[in-house]
Order: sequence, then C-alpha cells, then structure tokens
Amino acid sequence: MKGELQPTRHRTDLTVRYAETDRMGVVYYSNYFIWFEVARTDHLKSKGISYKELEEKNGLYLMVVESFARYKAPATYDDKVTVESWVSSVKNASFSFEYNVYLGDKIIAEGRTAHVLTDNSRRPVKLPEFIRKRILP
Amino acid sequence: MKGELQPTRHRTDLTVRYAETDRMGVVYYSNYFIWFEVARTDHLKSKGISYKELEEKNGLYLMVVESFARYKAPATYDDKVTVESWVSSVKNASFSFEYNVYLGDKIIAEGRTAHVLTDNSRRPVKLPEFIRKRILP
Amino acid sequence: MKGELQPTRHRTDLTVRYAETDRMGVVYYSNYFIWFEVARTDHLKSKGISYKELEEKNGLYLMVVESFARYKAPATYDDKVTVESWVSSVKNASFSFEYNVYLGDKIIAEGRTAHVLTDNSRRPVKLPEFIRKRILP
Amino acid sequence: MKGELQPTRHRTDLTVRYAETDRMGVVYYSNYFIWFEVARTDHLKSKGISYKELEEKNGLYLMVVESFARYKAPATYDDKVTVESWVSSVKNASFSFEYNVYLGDKIIAEGRTAHVLTDNSRRPVKLPEFIRKRILP
Repeated sequence: MKGELQPTRHRTDLTVRYAETDRMGVVYYSNYFIWFEVARTDHLKSKGISYKELEEKNGLYLMVVESFARYKAPATYDDKVTVESWVSSVKNASFSFEYNVYLGDKIIAEGRTAHVLTDNSRRPVKLPEFIRKRILP
Repeated sequence: MKGELQPTRHRTDLTVRYAETDRMGVVYYSNYFIWFEVARTDHLKSKGISYKELEEKNGLYLMVVESFARYKAPATYDDKVTVESWVSSVKNASFSFEYNVYLGDKIIAEGRTAHVLTDNSRRPVKLPEFIRKRILP
Repeated sequence: MKGELQPTRHRTDLTVRYAETDRMGVVYYSNYFIWFEVARTDHLKSKGISYKELEEKNGLYLMVVESFARYKAPATYDDKVTVESWVSSVKNASFSFEYNVYLGDKIIAEGRTAHVLTDNSRRPVKLPEFIRKRILP
Repeated sequence: MKGELQPTRHRTDLTVRYAETDRMGVVYYSNYFIWFEVARTDHLKSKGISYKELEEKNGLYLMVVESFARYKAPATYDDKVTVESWVSSVKNASFSFEYNVYLGDKIIAEGRTAHVLTDNSRRPVKLPEFIRKRILP
C-alpha cells in the first residue's frame, strides 16, 4: 500500500454457493479468484468504469498476469463473505488490485492480482487517461 | 435410440477432480454437463471432426439448446469414471447426444444434450454434409 | 404447474460473472444449474427453511436426482439476470423445482430439478412435516 | 529450487475443456489452480501416496495456505497442456509444490502452492514419516 494517499476501498458482498464448496466442506481454493474478479468488476463500476464496455466499446482487455492468495481460515456454504478491494499500484500499462476477504469482522483470506491492459491483439497498451485518473488512489 | 442402425458409442475416461466435489462429498451435479462436453469433443474427434476447427476455420458453432441428466449414484474424488456418448438423433440443423456415465460397470448417471448448429451470428445453419455423414449412426 | 393452487414464485437476482462465460462469449451451459442451486437456497430461505441448517442440524440432505434446462437466448458477462423459482411438485420423499431465467422481461432459459431427501447415509426419508407444509403451494 | 538434490518432476497431461475458457477466448485464470490440484494428486500418486486414502483412511487433510500463479501466455480450448510439478520445500508440518504449465515446449504459466497437513479438526500435524520420505527431493 502507498504511503500518503489511501486507496479507496470497495466492498462486495457475496453468499457462498454450494457449488463453491468441496468435499472438505469448505470453499475450494480457486474460487477465491472468481470472487476477486467479481470484486474487481464491482470496484471499477464504483469508479464509473464498466469493464464490459471497456471490452465491447473500447476494445481494451484486462489480462491477469499474476495472482496470489493466502488462506487464513475457511468459509463454507451459505456464509456471507465480503471482499474488500483496492488498487494497490498503477504503472504505465499495468496495475494491481489487492483484496481482503472477510467473514464477519475476521479476514479469512488475502489476495493480489496484477493486470496488463491490452488491445484485442493482446498487445499491451498505455492506460488511457480516463482509466488512470479514476483508479489512482 | 434408433431401431436398425446402432449409433457408434465412444468412451471417454475421466478422473474426478477435487474441485468437482462439493461439501456432500460427491460430484456436484452441474459438473456432469462439463463431462458431457468433454465427451462430445472426444466423440466428434473420433469421427474426424475437430470442434475447435469447426469454430475457428468454418465459423460454425454448436449451441446447446437443451440439457438433461439423471443421477443414479454418486461419484467422488479420484474416482475413475467413463462417459459413453452417442449421437441419438440427427435433423436438418440440429442433433442430439446421449450419455451414460459409468463407475466401474455401473451406470451412475445418464444424460442428453440437444444442439443447433449456427453461424457466428447465431443463425441456425443446415448441417454441412461433411458433418452429417460422419455423425449419422 | 398445478391447477388450482398457484405455487409461490421467488425471484433471485444475479450478475453474470466473467468466470461463467466461455469462448463463445456467453454463459457456459452448466452454469445455469449453479444459478438454479442459488435460487433454491434463496427460495427455501424465503419460506423459513435454511438448507444449511437442514444439513448441519437435522442431518438431512437434498440430493439432485434429475436436472433439465432449455436454453432460449444467451446471457453474457455483467448481465443482470433473475431466476424465478417455484416448487412444482411435492411427493412423499421427493419434490421438484422449476425455474425461469429472465434477462430483462424475456425468458432466456427454463429448467427443472428433481430432489430426494435423504439422511446422512443417503437413505431416502419422508419429507418432515415442517418442510412439507412450507414448500407446498 | 534446492541446491544439490534435484526434486523429482512429474508431468500431467491435460486437454483444455470448453468450460475452462472465458469470453476472452482463453483459459480463465482461476482454472490453472484446478490444474495444479490435478497435478498434485497425480504427483503424489507417482510417489505411492493416494491423497484420497490419506483423507479417508488416515484422516489427514492437505490444506492450501497459499497459492500463486504467473501467466505468461494464454491457452485455449482443446489445447494440450502439460503441468510439470515438483515439491519445492518440505518443513515440519508443511510443504510446497511448484508448477510449470507447458503448451508445446513453451512455459505459459508458473505457479506455487503451500500446504499444511491437518487432522480432521483442522489442527496442523507433523508430516508422518511415510509421507516425508516419499516427497523429499
């Protein structure tokens, strides 16, 4: 996280689906990355950016180049979890999101995803100003 | 199934993934439809049809218009299952697959999917002869 | 659907996840069954039944024995869809749900799932009165 | 990776499922973690450890505590990919796997998962000797 400017944090509420659990009785580990994606979509919307339009109108694609999660405690079916998300770094053609997953007031998982913006030929493109200024902390 | 001509049956072997189980300890019900898709791809390949090329070279898409499954016994993590698939009907612009899922020599699930062939604007197209003659029983 | 008594219909709103789409650009067909499950959980809750508690406190499990979907029009990423669900039949140890999936005011998919109630050894059990009276139309 | 002892590397072949792709036309990022799990199961088996039996007979569970992936190039439907896996560190009650995902002879993704062994009450347990000696490089 940055020193002086605090990034805006967005909260996304989810209810754990039966499909997301595994035979251990808890949420299967890859599903947290799906929640991170839901949180990203939501986060960008809260800043006036529709990622769907970005793809369909601007021909811009947000590639995931890295993903990370740390699991601290399990969640299970029908649990209400909240994914807190914030933009943790912004560079020329890339940026990162970080996430906390809460169950009640306890953080049960943390994560990070790094993204590159590309055109529809998968060539990285410089972040357009209308995106940069909205996601900057 | 047809009277005189027996459709060719193709067998696809799968090992149940941990991700495919749920908190009941068994394979979550929607995952059988993913197995059916794997079996379809495999079945068509065994008849010389690459569905990937159909999309990429011929601009043809196999839309699913109906899907059905009956679950008779559960499967769980690391089970070896076999999906038997056959083309059960062929019409002008559509056809159906049927499936049996075996665990050992026991049928644990049965299914059916109905498909329409379309161009890339989602308009139904007549089955091209090179497809029809290969999938006909 | 039944003649005289109209079953209560419950509506569940969902936003399509990127993860739920496939390379055809639309929601992959098996994911509708996950939505049906979300709708079931929601529907039962609206009638005072927590399926989670049913499993954890009563040792009762709702097995899916049949599932069916008909796909009429596609949905894609970030679409707001609504799953309407109702109990369409109730028998001694089993019952069925039916579903309509709306995109705007258009039904894009219909479905049905049949369920058997079991104990934790997978033996069918008679529907307890507190469940039966709540789910009856 | 370790200095002197080279860990055994196991290779697991997979064919990309249609279900695993997303509307960008490529494999959705969370699915790599499912492949890592398939590779782990496979890797352990190649060393004489059935993870299924570990759970069912020994009451031991392999919790994922961290997961990481770096995506370098995309894969799409029907691609044949190979997941190479190796045990990269072994501690008292935990160990890590690393992964390379190949498409042809090109590494398209790399990953790492960290695990803790627990009993069925989620309490960490010391790696039993029969596991330790088999997974050590």
